[in-house]
Amino acid sequence: MAHKNRIGNLFSLTTFGESHGPAIGGIIDGMPAGMSIDTQQLQQEMARRKPGQGSGTSSRNETDEVEILSGLFEGVTLGTPIGFIIRNRDQRPEDYDHLKDVFRPSHADFTYHAKYGIRDHRGGGRASARETACRVVAGALAKQALITMGININAKSLPPSIEKNTATGDTQGGIVECVITGVPTGVGEPVFGKLSAQLAEAMMSIPAAKGFELGLGFDFVNHPGSEVLDNWVVKDGNITTETNFSGGIQGGISNGNDIYFKVAFKPVATLPQTVKGINADGNIVTIEPRGRHDTCVVKRAIPVVEAMAAIVMLDNVLMARASRW
Amino acid sequence: MAHKNRIGNLFSLTTFGESHGPAIGGIIDGMPAGMSIDTQQLQQEMARRKPGQGSGTSSRNETDEVEILSGLFEGVTLGTPIGFIIRNRDQRPEDYDHLKDVFRPSHADFTYHAKYGIRDHRGGGRASARETACRVVAGALAKQALITMGININAKSLPPSIEKNTATGDTQGGIVECVITGVPTGVGEPVFGKLSAQLAEAMMSIPAAKGFELGLGFDFVNHPGSEVLDNWVVKDGNITTETNFSGGIQGGISNGNDIYFKVAFKPVATLPQTVKGINADGNIVTIEPRGRHDTCVVKRAIPVVEAMAAIVMLDNVLMARASRW
Amino acid sequence: MAHKNRIGNLFSLTTFGESHGPAIGGIIDGMPAGMSIDTQQLQQEMARRKPGQGSGTSSRNETDEVEILSGLFEGVTLGTPIGFIIRNRDQRPEDYDHLKDVFRPSHADFTYHAKYGIRDHRGGGRASARETACRVVAGALAKQALITMGININAKSLPPSIEKNTATGDTQGGIVECVITGVPTGVGEPVFGKLSAQLAEAMMSIPAAKGFELGLGFDFVNHPGSEVLDNWVVKDGNITTETNFSGGIQGGISNGNDIYFKVAFKPVATLPQTVKGINADGNIVTIEPRGRHDTCVVKRAIPVVEAMAAIVMLDNVLMARASRW
Amino acid sequence: MAHKNRIGNLFSLTTFGESHGPAIGGIIDGMPAGMSIDTQQLQQEMARRKPGQGSGTSSRNETDEVEILSGLFEGVTLGTPIGFIIRNRDQRPEDYDHLKDVFRPSHADFTYHAKYGIRDHRGGGRASARETACRVVAGALAKQALITMGININAKSLPPSIEKNTATGDTQGGIVECVITGVPTGVGEPVFGKLSAQLAEAMMSIPAAKGFELGLGFDFVNHPGSEVLDNWVVKDGNITTETNFSGGIQGGISNGNDIYFKVAFKPVATLPQTVKGINADGNIVTIEPRGRHDTCVVKRAIPVVEAMAAIVMLDNVLMARASRW
Repeated sequence: MAHKNRIGNLFSLTTFGESHGPAIGGIIDGMPAGMSIDTQQLQQEMARRKPGQGSGTSSRNETDEVEILSGLFEGVTLGTPIGFIIRNRDQRPEDYDHLKDVFRPSHADFTYHAKYGIRDHRGGGRASARETACRVVAGALAKQALITMGININAKSLPPSIEKNTATGDTQGGIVECVITGVPTGVGEPVFGKLSAQLAEAMMSIPAAKGFELGLGFDFVNHPGSEVLDNWVVKDGNITTETNFSGGIQGGISNGNDIYFKVAFKPVATLPQTVKGINADGNIVTIEPRGRHDTCVVKRAIPVVEAMAAIVMLDNVLMARASRW
Repeated sequence: MAHKNRIGNLFSLTTFGESHGPAIGGIIDGMPAGMSIDTQQLQQEMARRKPGQGSGTSSRNETDEVEILSGLFEGVTLGTPIGFIIRNRDQRPEDYDHLKDVFRPSHADFTYHAKYGIRDHRGGGRASARETACRVVAGALAKQALITMGININAKSLPPSIEKNTATGDTQGGIVECVITGVPTGVGEPVFGKLSAQLAEAMMSIPAAKGFELGLGFDFVNHPGSEVLDNWVVKDGNITTETNFSGGIQGGISNGNDIYFKVAFKPVATLPQTVKGINADGNIVTIEPRGRHDTCVVKRAIPVVEAMAAIVMLDNVLMARASRW
Repeated sequence: MAHKNRIGNLFSLTTFGESHGPAIGGIIDGMPAGMSIDTQQLQQEMARRKPGQGSGTSSRNETDEVEILSGLFEGVTLGTPIGFIIRNRDQRPEDYDHLKDVFRPSHADFTYHAKYGIRDHRGGGRASARETACRVVAGALAKQALITMGININAKSLPPSIEKNTATGDTQGGIVECVITGVPTGVGEPVFGKLSAQLAEAMMSIPAAKGFELGLGFDFVNHPGSEVLDNWVVKDGNITTETNFSGGIQGGISNGNDIYFKVAFKPVATLPQTVKGINADGNIVTIEPRGRHDTCVVKRAIPVVEAMAAIVMLDNVLMARASRW
Repeated sequence: MAHKNRIGNLFSLTTFGESHGPAIGGIIDGMPAGMSIDTQQLQQEMARRKPGQGSGTSSRNETDEVEILSGLFEGVTLGTPIGFIIRNRDQRPEDYDHLKDVFRPSHADFTYHAKYGIRDHRGGGRASARETACRVVAGALAKQALITMGININAKSLPPSIEKNTATGDTQGGIVECVITGVPTGVGEPVFGKLSAQLAEAMMSIPAAKGFELGLGFDFVNHPGSEVLDNWVVKDGNITTETNFSGGIQGGISNGNDIYFKVAFKPVATLPQTVKGINADGNIVTIEPRGRHDTCVVKRAIPVVEAMAAIVMLDNVLMARASRW
């Protein structure tokens, strides 16, 4: 189980930060020592996630400038924790004054209030998708380590079925598909620590994620077993599977073929139209559209999906070193 | 992240055991002290999971007799760890001699070999679904604790679309739907520890699980945001949602409505027909059907899904006690 | 922090069991795959810990027969968890009937009652030193792994200053010194995970342990810094220290020299004479000596100290594999 | 076990930072929601730890200004993680140029190099005692929570036996004694998670700590059991012990009496005189005294000991909430 605001074991990310507080940030622990860090690649990953990328995304001007505070010496990783912060700029907390005592529908306002008895109502506070910026930082570094082993991670959005909504003042969800290539055999843990389970946990921890499937996923139920067996073949001298219905993982452990999975995201819950909220007294309250919000998160979710995949994969590659004597 | 063979934090289960070794078993840690344990309910849960329940399930005669070795005093929990074992009886390891050097398709034989360089080939060894018996033990006790709080967990299989396969010597997968009622608001952790993420991890750790969705899940992508907002209402004096597209969880934390999710299972990979395996030298090997196996696991998966849900929920209910001062 | 009844990360031990329940046992997770296990060495370690070894030790006839239930295949480790149980035989719970409602002085009776509201009063229940048998099992296996790397662990008791007490119907404590040789440089974690901190935690978790010191320990305060610097030398081509005041660890990480430390144990709290207890109503109760108890635990503590050291060292050797890329 | 740079479970601290990098900092997770934070008390605690407090302490001018970046809303804790940074000012990295390729005696220079293959040589890098500033931040907040429950933590240095050394251009160690009052009964975990073990781990993780003892500690070996039994009495209606040789903990769980322990610190390893180091080629190198360093750390260690005690205690008070149903 993730411990509250931390994910990972040998390679881990712990994060902090509210959307409209002074800053968000995190600590990346377990980054192997001796790697030169490519800060340009890091900023490119950040740029892929940031708002204002055209149709469907928020116009909030987040520069998302990552300030790395430790763990590097002359550009090389020390093996010690990498602390970083991202200042929250271009804040307009007054945009949220009208939400101080109101719980919006399909948001975390009410549940945070129920859990903690207090919340930062400005822009979703801790529950804001803004926290995913920290995931991208850790994911970018993890990717740099993985690529030296030949492991690549690429996600894309599947063709949306309802794109018209963005034109009509509504919001939409979507599906992100991710493929991980170059994974050696034998990565993943047994039973509760299955690689598939860890990937599912990581993906479902992304805001608005509502579904996860590996390989054929839910479509497995439409086929008899004989149609979806992954037979073995020898390719380039290595045993691998001819087909890949399983999505590259068997019994929770990688089989050398590509790992691929899909993540479903619900439509953005902040609508560009009037909606009904409730206040703590149980009275229904009308909420007019304000602030700057995405109408479809899927495009911005792509680098976040990749980042979470990278975090899980690097952690498990490190874990695999301890499996044999 | 689950630590190898353990799941949970304040309420945790650690398991051991190969399918055809002397025994399987586990340690349940964090069971609150002072509860009378209903051993009859425990055995009923075990009976729901065991093979030989009619069409589609294995005829292996597992009595699944749970021997509790600690943590109880005169039938009441001590708060100390509950150790238990289940002897493996009615073993026929000779049924598996022909698999000693063969990796079956769509099984974990090859991946365990790749990871550890060694495996117990008899009946899948550690990767066998037999380990789920231990999950049901922990789940049964967790359910007993949860029910005193009014939390109930019920799963069922959705109508199978391809049931005919069982007649034709093939195997099939299926979907299990689970509903958790009576969950108080405010249960779950933020960010990486979202209740949805923990449930996904727990479910995807069940053998053959290939997909997970919460609430509307993948169907969210077929609706604009305005159609799937869960508006607030006051019911019996409590704030809750009118509809429940979100599946009872927002921002990773329970909102007081029912939590419901679906888990997809792939068809049983051991077919009742001749299949092709491979050996470590890369030669294709014909495998004749032998042993006793399920043709559809979904029926037996139901109590396992409930058990995993119960483990996650009890852990999070205990975690929630530490959220406020 | 140890999670309740578990210690270790990549190599971990989780235990269960009350002193007079059906059995004690545990799960060893993370034992590297592919090692032949020497069961004779295991039983020898168990024999060193068991009671009835002459003057000062309990005459309880514990055979301490370890039944390994998983994780081995034809005598070789599978990399999967090793479950084991040790049956409690020669129990005489009636020896403890008089303690049902009484808290003995300097025992855990009262504190367990305070924590859990219930306890197994027979022989200390979970708090009994009997649980250390499980530590010795895990320690024996860890030693077998460590020895293949050239790491050896040896403990002994320091000359007791008050041995006469055993003759006079009293009890005594003592000090165990442990030396670990052959540790490569670079083992241990920074900051909170210092090897010294982990060893201290492990040792102080042994029943009756009351003090820990590494290297010169408390005697450091009697010397100015210039007298206790460990200067570097080159020996056999490797950098190491000329003196070893530090005890082989600097900044929490091994420096290649011997690691040595001392553990102080308080006198056995169960006296062979009449003592005063208290009951839950606050009334003082006279307790006559009964049962079979050690008068000095130090001799039996030696293999336990070695076992805990072995568990910590193997865990950290495995951790060290993930430090560099 | 601490996971590298993190300590604690329900209340945890993860830290980052090198002594002469841009900043140090950390994330405090699990601070209960709804508490007003007294920032003045926080700065007072920081002031107690900072250098330049007169005889024996470094003259480095660290302002140790803590910038809290999250987890507070209008001065009240949100229950979300508290991220903070402390900028490294008044750095003089050039003071350390001469140490670039040299391992100082009795420092972590060599061991970090051995573990990671790289290190930040400036002022000890990650191994610098500067990281303890982050511990004091978390400890200050933990203290504020504990005090509302009536739990107080006070440490002091024991009279030094060798204070004269500071005058003569040498360094010295010392002993810090800490007393925790007001702890309710039943706090602490069994077996590996003993409160005594957790305190030992926490204290031994402080730089230069070399010994730990609870209650009578090592002196227990000088007394027969009959002299050091802690008999029970009823005081103010509660059961407690008459004497307190055990130091307030039995079987790893608090008994309601004061918890007290001692921590031994070795002399500062950076001497104000010429010493011999070694370089990676194995050549002995003369190191002239430079930089600004303490000659005795004990005074500055006092608030760090208190901070670590506070972190452990708050974590365990929160854990205790989950023990009973």
